[in-house]
Parts: sequence; structure tokens; C-alpha cells
Amino acid sequence: MDTLSLVSHNMENKGMDEGGGIGLGTFFDPESVAVIGASNGPFNLGATICRTLREYSSFAGPVYAVNRKGESVHGCAGFVSVTDIPEDVDLAVIITPAVVVPSFVKQCGEKGVGHIIIESAGFDEEGERGRAMQREISETAREYGIRIMGPNCLGVLNTRNQFCCFYGVPEDGFEAFMSEPGTVSYIIQSGGVVAVVLESLMKDVVKANKVISIGNKSDVDESDLIEYLAGDDTTEVIGLYLENVQQGRKFLNAARSAGKPILVYKVGRTEEGTRAALSHTAGMANNDVLFEGVCRQAGVLRINAISELHSIPKMLTRMPLLRGRKIAVFTNSGAFGGITADLLVEAGLEMARLSPETRERLSATGQIFNASNPIDLGPALSMQTFLEIFDILLSSEDVDGLLPVPSLWHPMIIDAIAKLVKKCHQYRKPAAIYTPNAVYKTVSYREKYGVPLFESPEEAVRALQCSYRHYRSSSRKNSAGNGNSRYRGEKA
Amino acid sequence: MDTLSLVSHNMENKGMDEGGGIGLGTFFDPESVAVIGASNGPFNLGATICRTLREYSSFAGPVYAVNRKGESVHGCAGFVSVTDIPEDVDLAVIITPAVVVPSFVKQCGEKGVGHIIIESAGFDEEGERGRAMQREISETAREYGIRIMGPNCLGVLNTRNQFCCFYGVPEDGFEAFMSEPGTVSYIIQSGGVVAVVLESLMKDVVKANKVISIGNKSDVDESDLIEYLAGDDTTEVIGLYLENVQQGRKFLNAARSAGKPILVYKVGRTEEGTRAALSHTAGMANNDVLFEGVCRQAGVLRINAISELHSIPKMLTRMPLLRGRKIAVFTNSGAFGGITADLLVEAGLEMARLSPETRERLSATGQIFNASNPIDLGPALSMQTFLEIFDILLSSEDVDGLLPVPSLWHPMIIDAIAKLVKKCHQYRKPAAIYTPNAVYKTVSYREKYGVPLFESPEEAVRALQCSYRHYRSSSRKNSAGNGNSRYRGEKA
Repeated sequence: MDTLSLVSHNMENKGMDEGGGIGLGTFFDPESVAVIGASNGPFNLGATICRTLREYSSFAGPVYAVNRKGESVHGCAGFVSVTDIPEDVDLAVIITPAVVVPSFVKQCGEKGVGHIIIESAGFDEEGERGRAMQREISETAREYGIRIMGPNCLGVLNTRNQFCCFYGVPEDGFEAFMSEPGTVSYIIQSGGVVAVVLESLMKDVVKANKVISIGNKSDVDESDLIEYLAGDDTTEVIGLYLENVQQGRKFLNAARSAGKPILVYKVGRTEEGTRAALSHTAGMANNDVLFEGVCRQAGVLRINAISELHSIPKMLTRMPLLRGRKIAVFTNSGAFGGITADLLVEAGLEMARLSPETRERLSATGQIFNASNPIDLGPALSMQTFLEIFDILLSSEDVDGLLPVPSLWHPMIIDAIAKLVKKCHQYRKPAAIYTPNAVYKTVSYREKYGVPLFESPEEAVRALQCSYRHYRSSSRKNSAGNGNSRYRGEKA
Repeated sequence: MDTLSLVSHNMENKGMDEGGGIGLGTFFDPESVAVIGASNGPFNLGATICRTLREYSSFAGPVYAVNRKGESVHGCAGFVSVTDIPEDVDLAVIITPAVVVPSFVKQCGEKGVGHIIIESAGFDEEGERGRAMQREISETAREYGIRIMGPNCLGVLNTRNQFCCFYGVPEDGFEAFMSEPGTVSYIIQSGGVVAVVLESLMKDVVKANKVISIGNKSDVDESDLIEYLAGDDTTEVIGLYLENVQQGRKFLNAARSAGKPILVYKVGRTEEGTRAALSHTAGMANNDVLFEGVCRQAGVLRINAISELHSIPKMLTRMPLLRGRKIAVFTNSGAFGGITADLLVEAGLEMARLSPETRERLSATGQIFNASNPIDLGPALSMQTFLEIFDILLSSEDVDGLLPVPSLWHPMIIDAIAKLVKKCHQYRKPAAIYTPNAVYKTVSYREKYGVPLFESPEEAVRALQCSYRHYRSSSRKNSAGNGNSRYRGEKA
């Protein structure tokens, strides 16, 4: 098969994108997969991928193992060479010592494989010899028209079709995790961060859609993937962890036209951080000030804690956007009125000034300690009172969003919170809910009752801030793009 | 009994302090207690105090209940009036409607009770009528020589003798909590914050010594209690949550001479926060800039998250102080090198520059990916390698402290962490350990293995920063006080 016929072979399958080049779809939705380097040897990482696909998930397509002995691995038929596999191979996952990767990439080319995920490390991030091999791979890939993800990565996890080529997935809870597809997709330049995010999502109300570990980005980079996920109907929010951005303009364009909230944690805010990242995934030094400017221009939400990658999407998917700065706090635990007021103001939001009319309506419920903002419910304990307060606040023009801090001292209160979530959608105003508890209790309440609880008052306020920022930037983009009113940017 | 004989009665007991006034000891270590307002009525809060003292703790002294019917409550003998109690009463806890509190304070005076905790709300924090009652109580207390804690508070919890007069304690885990006395004491101007701190400590390696909820501070205030806890040999660290500080000079003096690390979260960093706190515990508006200056002068560690009240003491009690800025990061999860480098530099600390000699010694272990700081262990898996690395780093003059980020992918690694904790004491250099996990897993690892794990990289860096700040301010105080070398301030 010559190169041209290979390309046309690829153009026939779903790896083809609209622009006529070879798209990324096959990375996420392969019909058949070869795991190159999977064997039955001790501590073999490729074998864990075969096991995941055959035992922990219900991925439907055939999976082949390629190894020296041609032995089957966890029920995946074994071959000595990719070219020995009698059926078509859509996607190859290479997890062998670095030194043999280039020859396997060539084999894939000969076989007509259009998409390869290289998980092996030892390339650009490891000196001149590694760089030479990475160059060789890139040349072969160009020659055969192959798209490459990696090297030095985990590749792709897709809950929609239960495809996952991560090695060493956490066994505890992984099947449940894969069987609950969510709407948040991640692009992560580090296996360690992938692990923390997956583990955190296992006990959260938002779930993952696609998770991509991109490593050295020899071909496919964060901007390609933002573009791909922007066109993916099942992705509502995109979260990124980056160690470097090599093509700032490309990133700006991809992020600006995504039309979805994008959260980015980027290492290298300091010189020392940049230096440390260099040795990890082979990035180039970046100017962080420049990147900050790109984020502002593109309406990207820059985050400063890894934990925000899983915490903030709750606000962006489970609640309407915050369309103004005026926040009403209500609590049955007085201290948190002052604590949250400080945090809201420091975050550039405002304590809503309630009109005399609103205050009168609140007082008329007959159960309130303090009817000005922050509203202190005291030990009020009728569901009716809670619901009346929600209606009064959410319907008031004085209020754009809520920051409820209910102490869960009675089981009725968690039921009231569940009803509040519904009312937020009805009134199209968000609530960032924090229950004053130790973090392990908050996590267990959230999991048990399926309500979007934040783990600290700081996190709740930060979520409101991100929601408002996304509302503002998407409104601006819309009005710049088509001259429409800024309210068109709103997602209800 | 006249006032003079009452005072002399009080001077005979342990309530007496060295200065000749009536001290605070009886609040923490009463020989007998009367709970005024405890009855068998539905939802009676006083009854929960009787129950805690008789059923959930092993407090040794007699406890009496005072109520209209004179009925016994949870095994506590009942009386209609305090003066009916045939034995001496060391401490009275009043938890009745506000309007009858003044008369009970008078009864206590007649009975010769020298210390009263008033838990009832409805005083200075609630308008003119409340203020008048609080004034009346203060006058009576002065007349009889009574010390008052509160009103509008929970009072005292002391794990040393299992005395606790908090109403409505969490039943789940409370007995275990009380039976493990720790070395951190808290002064907290809010019941809600007390609840969060207690719950958090239940799953931490540091435990509470004394917890005091001070409410409206009509008599005993935070400065009196700092002074008391400074003289308490079993308290190593003092944590405060404050809504206001009415006597800045008194606070400065108490904090400056405490000789122990003091952590303070204060509401009112913004005008809105100050206003919100006003309605909660009846404070006066404070100038936050002034308070910030007081904290600096006194060497108080100001914190900005409630969660730091329980997280930072781990560093101050379980590790030697950090005596310089140079931090070595080591990890087996590459990304966290860059993440922590950014955070350390932003916190005013430094990435240690390792000398060629130190780097050579590290490389000689034969298991290291990257021997410059951050040190990347890769998947090294011999305990011997871990221990060698700890020794090399902790013994190096290039390094003042460690920030280890070990991914716990193998059971050996948690054993290595336990050994690291011991080595830190041996070398008198601290380590702030973060394992890259979801927070709920970190909490469970910490609890299961008893190692001081932090819940996020941000928290670990913050702990190092606080340790270094305390080292610096205590060194300064010592050299100012007695002309000794600044290294005298160190606690090993």
C-alpha cells in the first residue's frame, strides 16, 4: 500500500474531519484497537490496558495484543507484528520501551492504521537521543498520514463507549465511574493529575465525558482537542491542565470559538515552576503574562488549584449562569454570613442590598432572625418557610444569585436543598451551596443526596465568580459576533 | 453571705489566679456543675448538656439540673433553684430564655458560684432590651465577684477531664473524640465554626485540647483566654476564630507574650463582612488594617480559611519548625514538581538549589529520574532508596525543609512516609507531605496510617509558610527579650 492509498483508506472511515484532513474522532471511538507492547510478563503495563478493555468496561470492538511471543493477553488475541493482524486496525496504542517505538509506528503505517497513541516515555523530555526518536516518529507519521497522540501520555478515556487505554486505572470504583457518562471533558498534560481528577469525580455530582492525557504533544495538542470537544455535543465544559502552550495564537483561536466554558490550570506562573515543568513533559519556556492575556481575550477561566478542575464544573453544568454580581447569602449558622460576605466582596461580587419590600416579605414568613443580607434563618424548621424564602429571593430583582450556607442539623434541610436546586432552574438564577461541615462529610452528603455541594466557602464563592465571568465573556463574544444583545450569551 | 465572703470563698478554690483576681481555671476544671435550664421538656437544650456529661463522657464531678419542676435530667439531680442545691457548685451553665438569665445570675451569686457560662442568646446582639439585660448581668457579676463566659456561646470543651457544656454535640464519634486529648486549643466566637472544627479534627492526626466558644464576651474575652492557654502546659498551639476584637492593645500584649503559635481567622476583612458579623455576636466595627498590624507585631499567624484552623496545627505540632526558606520537592508524579514550585515561590519560599555534591549523591542511589529540585523519583520502589533520599536531603545544608508528593500506588510508600516523619525529627527539619489524591482519600489515608498528610498542595505550602513565619517571629521575640541568639526561638 502506498501512502496515497493509505490516506484515502483513512478518509473513508470516521477519522475524517469536515475540513478534509484526518480528524480526531477515531482516538475516541475506534472500531478496533491494537495494544502494542501488551504481554503476560510481570508488571506489564500494556496488559493492564487489555484487562481494562476486556474486564472492567464494556467496550465493544475487538482488541489485539502485539508482543514478541505473539501471545494472547487477557482474552485479546496476540500477534508478533501489527501487520500480522488479519482484520483492520483503527487505533494503535503503543506502550513499549522508547527505543522500539519508531519501528512500530512504521509497522502501523504499513498496516494502514491512521491513529496512534504513544504512551511510552523517553522522548523530547529526555535529552538529545529522545528528541531524535520523536523527530523520526513525526516524519514517519507525516509520510503515512497518521495522527499521533503523545508520546509520554495515557491517551484517551471515553465514558460514552467505555473505551479507555489508560494503564493502571484505579480498580476501586472504576467500573461505576465508566458506566455513568457525564458532560465534562478534560485535556490533561500529566498522568498524575489525571489520577487526582478521576478519583475526585468518583464522589462528585458531575461526571466525566472524555479524559485525554496529551503528554509531549508531538502532533495532537490542546488546541486541536479544544476544537474537537467544542464540536462534541455531549461535552458541556472543558477542563485543562497544561505544562506549556507552544502555539499561543492557535490556542487563542480554538478557545475563543469553542462556545463552551473552558477552565485552565497552567503550571509556570513562576520561573521555578516553568523550569520544573520542562523536565516533565518537554515544554518550551512560556511567558505566563502572555498566556494570562490570551486567557482573558479568549474568555478562558484560569484556575489556580487542581481541585477546581472538578469543583467548578458543578456550577457550570448543574446551575444556570450567574448574570449579575448581586448575591444573597442565607444561613442558619450566623458566622458564615460574615465569612462569605468577606469572600464575595474579595471576589469582585456584591452583597445584594435587599429592598424594604423584599425584607418585609422575608420577615412575613415569621421565622427569620435577620431579614437583611446575610439572611439568618435561625433554627427555622418548616419546609414551607424554606420554600417561601427561596421564592422571595430568587424572584427578587435585588438578587442575581444565592450563596446558601445551611447547617444540616435536621434531615428536612437536605430535602429543602434538593428543592432549591429545582427552583434555581425555574428562576434561572444559580445557587452555590456550602454546608458547614468537615470536607469528608460534605463529600459524603453530596454523593448520598446527589446535590451540588461545595467543599468550602472559598470554593462556593469561586464557583460563583467563574460562572459570572463565563457569562460576561460569552455575552461579549456573542454581541461582538452578531451584534445581538449581550443577553444572548446566556445559557439557561 | 456578703460579697466579701463570697470573694474570699472563691479565692480559696482553684478559680484563683496568681495575680490575686479570680482566674479562669474553674471554667475548664470545675469540681461540680449546675445546668440551669435543663429539663425533660421536648427539644430542651440544657438536657443535651446533662446527657453529654453523664452518658457520652467520663466527667467525674457531680452535675445538677435546675428547672421549674426541680426534676432530675439524665441522671442529674434536679432542683428548682441554685440555692436549693445542698453541695457547693463550682460552675453554673445557664441555658434558659434570655429574660430569666439575670435572676439566675443573682441566684448563683447568692449560692457562691464563682464562674458562670451563659449560653442563652438574646443580649447585646439583639437590640436595646438585650443590651440592658447584658448590662444588668455584668453589674451583678461584678457585685458578687463572678467571672462570666458569654452570653450567646457554647462555653467550654476540655478533653483532658472530659468536661463539655456544648449543647447538641455530634453523637457520631464524639466519645472517641473526647477520649483522645490533643495539644491544640481553640477560642471560637461562633457555634457554627466550632462544629466544623470539631468534625474536621475527628479525622485528623491532631486532636483538640480545649475548645472555647466565647460569644458576646461580656467579661471573659479572647485575650484573657490566650493568657490562660499560654500558661496551660498541655496546649501547644492556639487557634482563634474572631468576629471582632474590642481591645486591640490587650490582644497585642496577650498574643505577644504567649510564646506559642497563634492562628487567627478574623471576619471583617471587608466592610460587608464587618456589617454581617455585627448582627451575629454584637461586635463593634473594627479597622481590619489596624488588626493586621497588631497580628504582625504580635507574631500572630493570620489565616484566610476556616479549614486552616485544623490543617496548619499538624505542621506546628507534628514537625520541627522550618528554620529557612529553602525547600526540596520530591515526587514520583512529575506534574507536582511544577505545581508545587509555583506555589512555594508565590508563598515567599524558595526551591532549594542542590549542590553538585548533593545531586551526585542522589544520582548514586541509581533510581532517580531527575536529581535536581524538584526531584523526580519515577517508579522507584525500594524502601532503601526512599530512606537514602530522605537522609541525603535532610542532612544537606542546601535544604531547610521538604515538600514530598508521593503517589501512593504501592503499600510500601506509606511505610516510607511514616519513616520520613521520624527522620524529620531526627534532622530537625520539617516535611509537608501531600499525596496526590482526592480529598476524601487523603483524609482516610491520614486517619488509617496516622501520618500528617495535607489535603492539597496549596495547604502543604501554606503550612510550610506558617511554620517559617512562626519560627521567624519567635526568634525575633527571643532575641529582643533577652539578647540571645535568634536561634533560641526554635522549638525542636
